[in-house]
Amino acid sequence: MKFNGRNVFVSASARIGENVRIGDNATIYDNVEIGDDSVICNDCVLGEPLNVYYSDSAYRNPPLVIGPNALIRSHSIIYAGCRIGDGFQTGHRVTIRENTEIGEHCSVGTLSDIQGDVIIGRYCRLHSNVHLSKTSSLGDFVFMYPFSVLTNDSAPPSADVKGGSIGSYTQVGVHAVVLPGIQVGENCLIGANSVVTKKVDDYSLAIGDPAKVVMDIRKYVVMGKGHPYPWMYRFDRGMPWQEIGFDNWMQQESHKKPAWS
Amino acid sequence: MKFNGRNVFVSASARIGENVRIGDNATIYDNVEIGDDSVICNDCVLGEPLNVYYSDSAYRNPPLVIGPNALIRSHSIIYAGCRIGDGFQTGHRVTIRENTEIGEHCSVGTLSDIQGDVIIGRYCRLHSNVHLSKTSSLGDFVFMYPFSVLTNDSAPPSADVKGGSIGSYTQVGVHAVVLPGIQVGENCLIGANSVVTKKVDDYSLAIGDPAKVVMDIRKYVVMGKGHPYPWMYRFDRGMPWQEIGFDNWMQQESHKKPAWS
Amino acid sequence: MKFNGRNVFVSASARIGENVRIGDNATIYDNVEIGDDSVICNDCVLGEPLNVYYSDSAYRNPPLVIGPNALIRSHSIIYAGCRIGDGFQTGHRVTIRENTEIGEHCSVGTLSDIQGDVIIGRYCRLHSNVHLSKTSSLGDFVFMYPFSVLTNDSAPPSADVKGGSIGSYTQVGVHAVVLPGIQVGENCLIGANSVVTKKVDDYSLAIGDPAKVVMDIRKYVVMGKGHPYPWMYRFDRGMPWQEIGFDNWMQQESHKKPAWS
Repeated sequence: MKFNGRNVFVSASARIGENVRIGDNATIYDNVEIGDDSVICNDCVLGEPLNVYYSDSAYRNPPLVIGPNALIRSHSIIYAGCRIGDGFQTGHRVTIRENTEIGEHCSVGTLSDIQGDVIIGRYCRLHSNVHLSKTSSLGDFVFMYPFSVLTNDSAPPSADVKGGSIGSYTQVGVHAVVLPGIQVGENCLIGANSVVTKKVDDYSLAIGDPAKVVMDIRKYVVMGKGHPYPWMYRFDRGMPWQEIGFDNWMQQESHKKPAWS
Repeated sequence: MKFNGRNVFVSASARIGENVRIGDNATIYDNVEIGDDSVICNDCVLGEPLNVYYSDSAYRNPPLVIGPNALIRSHSIIYAGCRIGDGFQTGHRVTIRENTEIGEHCSVGTLSDIQGDVIIGRYCRLHSNVHLSKTSSLGDFVFMYPFSVLTNDSAPPSADVKGGSIGSYTQVGVHAVVLPGIQVGENCLIGANSVVTKKVDDYSLAIGDPAKVVMDIRKYVVMGKGHPYPWMYRFDRGMPWQEIGFDNWMQQESHKKPAWS
Repeated sequence: MKFNGRNVFVSASARIGENVRIGDNATIYDNVEIGDDSVICNDCVLGEPLNVYYSDSAYRNPPLVIGPNALIRSHSIIYAGCRIGDGFQTGHRVTIRENTEIGEHCSVGTLSDIQGDVIIGRYCRLHSNVHLSKTSSLGDFVFMYPFSVLTNDSAPPSADVKGGSIGSYTQVGVHAVVLPGIQVGENCLIGANSVVTKKVDDYSLAIGDPAKVVMDIRKYVVMGKGHPYPWMYRFDRGMPWQEIGFDNWMQQESHKKPAWS
């Protein structure tokens, strides 16, 4: 049904793995490497050139490396100069700019916009319309919800930018804003529509504008759901502890590397 | 000018009505049914397959039914498995996922993102960038403004989601967030940037984070505009009471079906 | 690498300047004029017809004029009936509707949505996902950040709309909302997530929901950055005072035209 080879462009210098399907109207530019068993849906652009391409006739596209088992949904644009781990998934119309590093098994939702020079750990989930400004960073197992934003300029406009950072296992709610350079710790929950203006320690529930830490997340009770945090003991879909449980997974030698590696 | 038949793909199993125009680069997959006199603009994808398509070789695309007189603007993506009533319109780059039911004469604005398993009544107007999470529902004549969101997960991440619901005739302001499972009544106005954390009764004006009901909407005065609510007595563009008035329309036998049907 | 002439459509009535590069899958409709040395990237649609096109067989596309040295990034849609000055740049997937006038050297970021009947001065910078409703206006050197919105309907829904206006040199923070018809003065800074509900005078720092003026921006101190405002004395990238300084530029005869011209 899909993948008819209609109007596809693949650069001669692209390296396409085994059993990769490429959708109609897709464009794959120079020096793109796609791992085995990946699906690139229709109308995607991979290896989008950097700005300098338009003015420098000697421009050479830096590599874009996408690991195996990717599912890049339609109309997504990923720039040259990114490195993305195994099992990557996107929604539609995602934009990922240059010099972004994304760990294994992440997903980036429909309309999300990663501005470049961003570091994202393993197993992160960006829902729709997440905006990460340049120099932002996420740990591992971070979830960000629609219209959440990491900003990077404390006195706009300026050339002196520093993105926020989100610790592993933290959840950032819809419409939440993290101000420039602010660090949010691990295992936090940032409430919907909050504005995070200062450092948030591990295990905090922070809400409001400006966001205030209202309690230790481990004491947080949700009606009908008991103490839902840390969430790793009750949610495992797509997580490496699926079927074995979080504690067992934590004890496996292979996963003892630090979360922020 | 448009509709040159350039690079169009239409599945053999699609059923295209009379006098339907299909734009360049459009893709119409299996089992899509488009009603008479519709316009499908360039670069649209109709009948986008569900996730299981990528892994199941026996996959069969569920039907997408779009009623007559649709105007689907360019670059929109509508998944298989949706049912959409007569007179549907979209802006550009709309995404509508599977199992969404949309009543007659609705419009969904540019960049709006309907996540699937959503029910939308008749004559609803979603402006740009509206986000409806899975299992959300809207009554009839609901208007939602840019960046408004219905969420569905009260302890993210979880597999136990329940979207919000918005009653008929209600207006949801820009950047407003409705928390998971929360019901907003009929004929309400939710102010810009509000966060709705608990049930809102009919005829409420609710504003703030968390949103508070500040008055009965019928008492609300806007400078130079008197008492603008209920709005159906002063606004009728595209509404079924156009030219005859709301009260007369309400008394017509044909429209006595309940608004939430 | 790009610009292979694959699947390009250019109307016979379009006027394409010297040394213009047009990307694959681009569509340029009737009466579009593109200035010299411009780059139109892949999948763009220029001269998108107005709504009446779909119903009026005698429709004639109004002109779209784009000045020289434009760089329109991929998947952007610009309607017929707009006039855009020299040195225009866009991100990806920008939508600009009819009757929009944009001065010289502006940029409009990825996913921004300009609803039409909008006036934008010179050297404005719209970051990603900025939403300008119909009849909004910006002065010169205005910067708007992600998810900021200018609204236009004080009693929605209505046919009586009036957009907000932003004075020259003003910065509008992420997720900020300006309510309908509200004027924000020159040289202001509107904080992240603010809702501007009434007129803001020149040189104000306004924050909160509803936004309150907390100080004269010239007294604002940012840790490690001293007094960063007015910003024109410390930031000049792409600005006309680059290399000569703001005061010198202000004294040049050629730039003594009023900022809001």
